[in-house]
Amino acid sequence: MGSERTIYLQMQPIEQALETVQQELRPATLLGHELVATEEAVGRVTAEAVYAQYSSPTFHGAAMDGIAVRAADTFAAREGAPVHLERNTGFVEVNTGNPLPDGMNAVIMVEHIDFVDSDTVAIEAPAFPWQHVRRIGEDIVATELLLPQNHTLTPYDTGALLSAGIWELAVWQQPVVEVIPTGDEVLDFRQRPEPRPGQVVESNSQVLAGLARQWGAEVRCQPPVADDESILLQAVQDALDGPAHVVVIGAGSSAGSKDFSRRVMEQCGRILVHGITAMPGKPSLLGVAANGKLLVGAPGYPVSAVVCYEQLLQPLLAQMQHKPVNRRPVIEVEINRKLPSKLGVDEFVRLAIGKVGDKWVGTPLARGAGMITTLTRAQGVARIPTESEGVEAGQTVRAELFVPAEEVERVLVAVGSHDNTLDLLANALQGLKHPIGLASSHVGSMGGLTALQNGSVHIAGAHLYDPESGDYNFPFLQRYLADIPVTAVNLAIRHQGLIVPRGNPKGIQGIQDLTRDDVRFINRQRGAGTRILLDDHLHRAGLSAREVNGYGHEEFTHMAVAVNVLSGAADCGMGIYAAAKALDLDFVPLARERYDLLIPTAYLEDEKIRSVLDLLGKPEFQQEIESLGGYDTHLTGQVMQPGMGLGEG
Amino acid sequence: MGSERTIYLQMQPIEQALETVQQELRPATLLGHELVATEEAVGRVTAEAVYAQYSSPTFHGAAMDGIAVRAADTFAAREGAPVHLERNTGFVEVNTGNPLPDGMNAVIMVEHIDFVDSDTVAIEAPAFPWQHVRRIGEDIVATELLLPQNHTLTPYDTGALLSAGIWELAVWQQPVVEVIPTGDEVLDFRQRPEPRPGQVVESNSQVLAGLARQWGAEVRCQPPVADDESILLQAVQDALDGPAHVVVIGAGSSAGSKDFSRRVMEQCGRILVHGITAMPGKPSLLGVAANGKLLVGAPGYPVSAVVCYEQLLQPLLAQMQHKPVNRRPVIEVEINRKLPSKLGVDEFVRLAIGKVGDKWVGTPLARGAGMITTLTRAQGVARIPTESEGVEAGQTVRAELFVPAEEVERVLVAVGSHDNTLDLLANALQGLKHPIGLASSHVGSMGGLTALQNGSVHIAGAHLYDPESGDYNFPFLQRYLADIPVTAVNLAIRHQGLIVPRGNPKGIQGIQDLTRDDVRFINRQRGAGTRILLDDHLHRAGLSAREVNGYGHEEFTHMAVAVNVLSGAADCGMGIYAAAKALDLDFVPLARERYDLLIPTAYLEDEKIRSVLDLLGKPEFQQEIESLGGYDTHLTGQVMQPGMGLGEG
Repeated sequence: MGSERTIYLQMQPIEQALETVQQELRPATLLGHELVATEEAVGRVTAEAVYAQYSSPTFHGAAMDGIAVRAADTFAAREGAPVHLERNTGFVEVNTGNPLPDGMNAVIMVEHIDFVDSDTVAIEAPAFPWQHVRRIGEDIVATELLLPQNHTLTPYDTGALLSAGIWELAVWQQPVVEVIPTGDEVLDFRQRPEPRPGQVVESNSQVLAGLARQWGAEVRCQPPVADDESILLQAVQDALDGPAHVVVIGAGSSAGSKDFSRRVMEQCGRILVHGITAMPGKPSLLGVAANGKLLVGAPGYPVSAVVCYEQLLQPLLAQMQHKPVNRRPVIEVEINRKLPSKLGVDEFVRLAIGKVGDKWVGTPLARGAGMITTLTRAQGVARIPTESEGVEAGQTVRAELFVPAEEVERVLVAVGSHDNTLDLLANALQGLKHPIGLASSHVGSMGGLTALQNGSVHIAGAHLYDPESGDYNFPFLQRYLADIPVTAVNLAIRHQGLIVPRGNPKGIQGIQDLTRDDVRFINRQRGAGTRILLDDHLHRAGLSAREVNGYGHEEFTHMAVAVNVLSGAADCGMGIYAAAKALDLDFVPLARERYDLLIPTAYLEDEKIRSVLDLLGKPEFQQEIESLGGYDTHLTGQVMQPGMGLGEG
Repeated sequence: MGSERTIYLQMQPIEQALETVQQELRPATLLGHELVATEEAVGRVTAEAVYAQYSSPTFHGAAMDGIAVRAADTFAAREGAPVHLERNTGFVEVNTGNPLPDGMNAVIMVEHIDFVDSDTVAIEAPAFPWQHVRRIGEDIVATELLLPQNHTLTPYDTGALLSAGIWELAVWQQPVVEVIPTGDEVLDFRQRPEPRPGQVVESNSQVLAGLARQWGAEVRCQPPVADDESILLQAVQDALDGPAHVVVIGAGSSAGSKDFSRRVMEQCGRILVHGITAMPGKPSLLGVAANGKLLVGAPGYPVSAVVCYEQLLQPLLAQMQHKPVNRRPVIEVEINRKLPSKLGVDEFVRLAIGKVGDKWVGTPLARGAGMITTLTRAQGVARIPTESEGVEAGQTVRAELFVPAEEVERVLVAVGSHDNTLDLLANALQGLKHPIGLASSHVGSMGGLTALQNGSVHIAGAHLYDPESGDYNFPFLQRYLADIPVTAVNLAIRHQGLIVPRGNPKGIQGIQDLTRDDVRFINRQRGAGTRILLDDHLHRAGLSAREVNGYGHEEFTHMAVAVNVLSGAADCGMGIYAAAKALDLDFVPLARERYDLLIPTAYLEDEKIRSVLDLLGKPEFQQEIESLGGYDTHLTGQVMQPGMGLGEG
């Protein structure tokens, strides 16, 4: 995997980088024409104008079932003064699609004729010329332009082309992209590997394959190549000698001691761009091979790679195919958290987006370039431009949506504390007849209260314990959210405690063990209800935070705490039983607590919220929660009142 | 091809028809689960929740090239008071992606360290814990929910799934749609037929194939089946016994004497819907087979078939796959022509759409259900609801766009007279580095003037001859458009005359022959410059319109007139030489005339208009015009002034 340390020689803003490459590429020589069968051409791009071979229809035909007539013969017909026409000389019976007999120029619908006898009809209204007739060439006239060059073919076009007798047509070749992943630490997914420390499963090539297919290109993926300059050079040269129009080297595009992409590309052609002023995506590398093919060095981090693909490779592939870049829908979203941004770089911030009340709200997700799930969990992405130092909470940004706005309207925005049952809820909501998405951001219970305050969420998960009253959440709502009517609905009561390795090798029994020298603790972030609970337990035990080794090491979710324990990165962390059970760890119980969904009362009648409440009331769903372990659902789905505590009074 | 005469027993509005079928279909039993390889799953829909197998990363790793340290060891470091660390005990060199050695919890970038000797570094600033570290599970924690059920997989998801060790996953089966086209008159395109009068090339099945592929279904197409009830019944039963989940019978869905779809469907299952209150699309037929599969009788006319596919089949296929319907972008467009609509039906009106000034303008295209080119030439479609009697010119409607709005912004809207060079222009504009679309509607020169008056076009093509002054267009502009500054740029001078069959079998020599009893004429529509020219010639010859056999038979383009002559539907028509030449017909010259592009002066600096003017000035393009035959380009691309006539004074 490439380094993020950078000595970039041709660093450029995105659009300038693109322009630089576009001026060097010769798409029309890189990609030739090919003939494809019309019925297989949807999505391809015409390489030249297409003219109709036949007219459609090729004849004047009946557009209705009835009789064909000469309009002039009927001009005298009136109600009560019918005109009589004889079979063959005066009329001919026709079905829709039949050609009109020579000289006839109108059709009278079967409903409007009376048969006087089997060969004579009476007409009581005149027919006007061409009435109910599909005229020759009405749709298509032979030799006329059906489609211009550089037109992306649609299914409708297939219909017009076949109707006009075009059985095959010249289109631009499909660009072939060959991807060469690199890295000693990178495992080939085809071998279904189990990654050990230091190893990762190579997946960026497959993300590119999926994207590039949507962009009209064919992607061929090689197995990963070791970090060895001469092996990589050989692989790239082989690819350049083959059918590929574009060769992508995966990772190694930066300037570290094991980053060979640049040196290899210099030996095969010329570097045009090294580095773009973008985050993620900075270590993007572009060049042109001696034979005119496009060379791309993609960054190793998955989100950086996606930025490189989407911002640079996508428009270049579109240019090669003479078609416009696919555009995503764009909306204005209000950002619900301060979003600082570095001057001088375009930042691509992934957002969980939903419609809260009548405004679109975006919650910025984690910024790390290494987190592919920030893309899978996002509904869109905002580009914070180079000249901006960031966006304040409450300001709006333009965001590209990954799915149509109608779908995003069906997303519930949840910001607050993390709990494993939220996964169950997300899955169950997506299984409804009218599915609902759940976009949950884990910022701790206090963060959820702030989001409620800003009017930017449908739901805030919270388990804030007030030692003074022994109650949950309400004391905090009264303190911080007195002006906004909020309803608390219980999600579950859960067991909190110390998560320890299987077998509890350090014999941790309780809170007092956290101060032992041989125990490395892993903590939750400030504002997390679990941290408040820990602090309360430390306080009651007369212990100080400073005595806890690792108190300053923070994670954002129960599962992240558990995985630290599982991997041996920590000996112990505070969290819920369900997280310990999920990873087959042991658990030292400390307390039971109430986890509620805090919902602005104004949204209680929202269809999405109603669906959540319905679901929570279902015994089957409560059963699912219980089966996670460490949950008690006797309050689940019920509206809470101040002073209820654990509801066991 | 089916009849448009209708005795529908279960006629329903679109949404009600859909609801009726949705209540009868059992998607989850119709379509089962199947396992697919993760790297091939983009676009498929998860059939169950997907939980992570591995964490990602599986270890604490360096996020930068540099050295790994224990943060606590560096806390005392200050500028001028460095901390020294020894290799292995105090620091370990790491590249991005390397695991941190046990006990180390921070990385210092290579730029921020000084080597005192080869085994000792000096640090002048403290490192905070987890600095430049990608923490274990930062992206994905084993066992957590990666994707809920009923989620349409994206390329990003591929990355997350492979990173989490998910090599294959359960998705809903892809629906298989089997199409059986019907009709004695229908030709199989695979045989590359040449349609004779009464015959048409079957293409609706291929339009459906292209659409359904975009909707996630697989389509299998049979060759056309004759209009024979027992043969069709056998074909449908065979299809129902096979792998298809949906069987579509193409055409024959109405109630005419040769419409067998309904009777066949009644023998295989139950009819749920026969007829929808939609135009086009009325004769849509839906049912459910005895074995639970979906039966569709699609109308025969191509636009009717598309309405049936898009409004009924598409949402049903989406429902089967547990995914939302693909939505097209929607905009508000101003309609530039009165659009009457029938009460009680939803009308789907295809629109040529462009952005003129700062408003979106839609020109309604022809309404005929038989015209597939109204879909290929349209940028979008408006649905005029059942309760509306239509839309006045200048009112707005909501239109679904076939392409993103950004692309529609690059469409030039031309309304006015028809000329074959407009095809050349359309093709050339699409060949520019920044391609421009040309949406031209042919409503005659006077229609173009009206469109200019309404401010709804970029360009109006006109060749209006004023006999009094001998000048073109300007007298009309002064009369009808005095308030709007318009610039006239010449497109070409062209030859008008009488188009006659090859060899001129009736010996037509001039305007006086049009009154002969044995000559059937085909005319242009009212407001066409060509008709005005004809009237002038008749007038000058002392002839009356009533003496011309066929004066009342109107076509809208030169090519349509020519094809009437080619097919023998008329003996003679008035039109341009290029149209006669295109169809290899003979031509009796009557006059030369000036054809100008009338452009609101306000748009002369519009990039699209500038591109048109550039192109017209190019000798190569003028050469292309000349090669059509019957054109003279000595004025082409020049700004015209009043009184210039043919520019030969």
